[in-house]
Amino acid sequence: MTQFPADHGEWDASTNDVKVGGVSIGQYLIRRLQDYGLRDLFGIPGDYVLNLYGMLEQSPIRVIGCTREDCAGFAADAYARINGLGAVCVTYCVGGLSVCNSIAGAFAEKSPVVMITGSPGLAERVNNPLLHHKVRDFRTQLEVFEKLCVASTEISDPVNAFREIDRVLDAAIRFKRPVYIDIPRDLVDLVPHVTHTYQRTQWKTDPQVVAEAADEAAEWLEKSKQPVIIAGVELHRFGLQDRLLELAEGSQIPIASTLLGKSVVSEKLPLYIGLYEGAMGDDEITQYVESSDCIVLLGAFRTDINLGIYTANIDPAKCIYATSESLRIRHHHYRGVLLDDFLVELIKRKPKRSAPRLPNTPRVPAGPFVVEPDAPITISRLIARLNEQLDAETVVIADIGDSLFAATELVIHQRTDFLSTAYYTSMGFSVPAALGACVAKPNDRVVVICGDGAFQMTGMELSTIVRHGFNPIIIVLDNHGYGTERTLHPGNWEYNEIHPWDYARIPDVLRGGKGYTVNTEGELDETLRAVWDDRAEVSLLHVKLPTDDQSETLRRLAMRLSERI
Amino acid sequence: MTQFPADHGEWDASTNDVKVGGVSIGQYLIRRLQDYGLRDLFGIPGDYVLNLYGMLEQSPIRVIGCTREDCAGFAADAYARINGLGAVCVTYCVGGLSVCNSIAGAFAEKSPVVMITGSPGLAERVNNPLLHHKVRDFRTQLEVFEKLCVASTEISDPVNAFREIDRVLDAAIRFKRPVYIDIPRDLVDLVPHVTHTYQRTQWKTDPQVVAEAADEAAEWLEKSKQPVIIAGVELHRFGLQDRLLELAEGSQIPIASTLLGKSVVSEKLPLYIGLYEGAMGDDEITQYVESSDCIVLLGAFRTDINLGIYTANIDPAKCIYATSESLRIRHHHYRGVLLDDFLVELIKRKPKRSAPRLPNTPRVPAGPFVVEPDAPITISRLIARLNEQLDAETVVIADIGDSLFAATELVIHQRTDFLSTAYYTSMGFSVPAALGACVAKPNDRVVVICGDGAFQMTGMELSTIVRHGFNPIIIVLDNHGYGTERTLHPGNWEYNEIHPWDYARIPDVLRGGKGYTVNTEGELDETLRAVWDDRAEVSLLHVKLPTDDQSETLRRLAMRLSERI
Repeated sequence: MTQFPADHGEWDASTNDVKVGGVSIGQYLIRRLQDYGLRDLFGIPGDYVLNLYGMLEQSPIRVIGCTREDCAGFAADAYARINGLGAVCVTYCVGGLSVCNSIAGAFAEKSPVVMITGSPGLAERVNNPLLHHKVRDFRTQLEVFEKLCVASTEISDPVNAFREIDRVLDAAIRFKRPVYIDIPRDLVDLVPHVTHTYQRTQWKTDPQVVAEAADEAAEWLEKSKQPVIIAGVELHRFGLQDRLLELAEGSQIPIASTLLGKSVVSEKLPLYIGLYEGAMGDDEITQYVESSDCIVLLGAFRTDINLGIYTANIDPAKCIYATSESLRIRHHHYRGVLLDDFLVELIKRKPKRSAPRLPNTPRVPAGPFVVEPDAPITISRLIARLNEQLDAETVVIADIGDSLFAATELVIHQRTDFLSTAYYTSMGFSVPAALGACVAKPNDRVVVICGDGAFQMTGMELSTIVRHGFNPIIIVLDNHGYGTERTLHPGNWEYNEIHPWDYARIPDVLRGGKGYTVNTEGELDETLRAVWDDRAEVSLLHVKLPTDDQSETLRRLAMRLSERI
Repeated sequence: MTQFPADHGEWDASTNDVKVGGVSIGQYLIRRLQDYGLRDLFGIPGDYVLNLYGMLEQSPIRVIGCTREDCAGFAADAYARINGLGAVCVTYCVGGLSVCNSIAGAFAEKSPVVMITGSPGLAERVNNPLLHHKVRDFRTQLEVFEKLCVASTEISDPVNAFREIDRVLDAAIRFKRPVYIDIPRDLVDLVPHVTHTYQRTQWKTDPQVVAEAADEAAEWLEKSKQPVIIAGVELHRFGLQDRLLELAEGSQIPIASTLLGKSVVSEKLPLYIGLYEGAMGDDEITQYVESSDCIVLLGAFRTDINLGIYTANIDPAKCIYATSESLRIRHHHYRGVLLDDFLVELIKRKPKRSAPRLPNTPRVPAGPFVVEPDAPITISRLIARLNEQLDAETVVIADIGDSLFAATELVIHQRTDFLSTAYYTSMGFSVPAALGACVAKPNDRVVVICGDGAFQMTGMELSTIVRHGFNPIIIVLDNHGYGTERTLHPGNWEYNEIHPWDYARIPDVLRGGKGYTVNTEGELDETLRAVWDDRAEVSLLHVKLPTDDQSETLRRLAMRLSERI
């Protein structure tokens, strides 16, 4: 990719030094984003950010214009999960405050999204005038995002501008969480009269601490009878999947995953046993994990949904719990140990083990899916049929509710090819996330599983997908309402009903894509065959489910959740 | 309307006292909302707010379920502008953080919206677990809304719950700004073991201060040669339109309005001269106002757009500037004077004046609109044609951009029958606002003027409008892109282009309403006649404009704005 600013002699590429008066603040930001591998960015222009948009349009970074800012945020989040860094660029307040929820989700689930915003020029702010888009004062937007980001800056001093950009971007990479950069519009083209050398901060682990921890862990693993690894989403975020495999395969330790971490390794791996979800999950797996005498939790968040709404029964005295934030063995803590360093040291010690006894869980369906052509389609049968269709080039994105719970039964072939907001659980993530995934992996086939309520929130972002000629398969599960809530709060509540759309007509509005209506297993089978071959355009499947249809997982989860309402 | 809780003997309606153990926290909130005249509420349910939703569904307050939370927020804002108070009820974080932008707009433009949210129960929060929807900690959402609301509370102590609800609701009424109420889900049904008497705080003006101010203002008005009133939106928010008329008609003072205050009085009034917008507006009016020797600004925000992007040339030495927050005559200030009290005292003094010379501005088009059947339709001609159709039962809602600027030329018949976000200028306000207006005024005809970019953001909220059988007329102005920005940042920028929808097909998706495509004046004329008579359903007009079409006002505004980019 061409470096930016391309024709600028004032940036020394070999040393990464900026000479005096070399580069403008906007140019520096764009160049640094590129250094981190960002090739695309999502957003909507607005007058306080127009000059930055102009600069982006002339840079090698492609700007994907979305229909709504929150969709741009979700797309950037999905892109970040796949690409390692994502970015969204919007205007002041009316734009920025519209992505709060998307950025909050990225924070909660550790997705490194750079939120870039323009704002009124410093010169315009004198005497605190009532400029349009202002809420309370000029700091309101910054103050809001300080609550939702791991680092934030409003560029206000040209002398510090490059350092601030470095600091904030490094935080996004280090913590895998969103950051906020606000450039007043009169500073975008400003060239600070400074020299600048980029220095990435290095975080180091104390070798004695990690050695002691690895010794202890290795020794325990060697003598344990039935160890198991629970692999969490951080292994993906920090790119540690190969380390995981080295450890698991080297020592023959079975791997389970969490719901949020689903597909952190290929679910076809011989050592992969399935999802651990407490009482929500498969009994065999639950029992296998909970009867283990050494459970190695790696990069797994201990969230309510990951832990089957606290039905998980894991004794800390049997755990090695290592994340990017902490390392605990049984009840004692090792401070300041990087997850990667711990894994490296543990692998070096080659804990010896023989081939394990694996649980008897059929991870792959017993036989081929037999279509009952006239049977009304149900969510479980849909998932079973879809399972046959997945291959190594498929990315599955599940929205929340039963889209997510049912999708847990899919077998994902490649690493991180299953995306979902399984902890923050924000409805409407999936269609904009499909946009992000298509932009990041244009050669893969993206399949979205989305409830009707979620689709009504953000489904029209299909517009951007059609505009760019992507070809995802969007499956809308229509039970005309908020199905999960029907289970959570039993009773005939009107608030769970939604207006019935004729989803299959949406391609007519968007002038692109093809719509299908699916009532039976036969229609599903036929449609899936047709759309899998049609790589030319978006396919939108309107799947009509019985109102009270549920997956097994939802039934179990709802039982647990409803006990707490 | 039935009072709630209906069958509860523990609330003394005559004294407004709650006896010990009488009413739950949820019931108290609902009852107090009713006391302020709230009949409808907008939102989306979610598991942390399901028990409050259940209670609402059994109360006399009607819950209007929306497709997205931000739309619910815009609808509540429009409802508040018409009804005096609006409310939105959503779940924790994924719901709440999705209405940030709508609430921010209500703050900026002084619309009293109560933002109600559920949250994890206090008992669930022990040890700070990773409950789903949580961002950073359990206070994140509260801390965000403290920046966007005039008062906020998270109910945490049953003993204070009723007092907190009173305090926060009173602030919404007093300041006409949004407030935030968070009820952890395990407190909704809790009955505090307290007695409670509601006491509304009274704000008083010092009679000596207001007397001196009114004396000074009246004396000045009497001796001035050409006084003029600039009537702002606060006159509407605080219900002071009758006072305005009493003053203006009693003393024969002409009235201009601001863009945000448009329709604060009927634009058919003899003393009404039009909008004052500095260099953006009509020259005659600008000159009339700026040559006045006594300008009475009443409840007008001095925003950039209200003041024609600071092209307004108003000398403070010629101004009486009275708002809900301050009172200034020339360069001196009177503290603590309520706007209403000032007006009452000023009117009492009956400043005597004879009939004024009015500017020669033709407020009503010279003659009937003559259709040129084959002429391509333009925005100016559309507005001129629409002007003929307006009557006293029409509510006009303009989205931002040229929808707003062009709509300034409409003549509004009734007070406050023109709604727009003319200061905060958040794209996508209009269609959800139409929902709010239809709910608040079901017998009026609502007309929306909306750009294509704005429509793509929130236009699918038509779903809820169709669901409830409302019949607004939605005019989508299609110049396939962000037209205002094309003018602001000249150049052939791709970022201003958007994907072309076939808007007239949307009724097919929503299974309701009728779509029309309009290319010429003849088609517009015919369609407007047809839809005005069709009161049975939503009408959606897809008006295809030339890409470079602009209203005169936009041309003037863009010139001013582009000087600042």
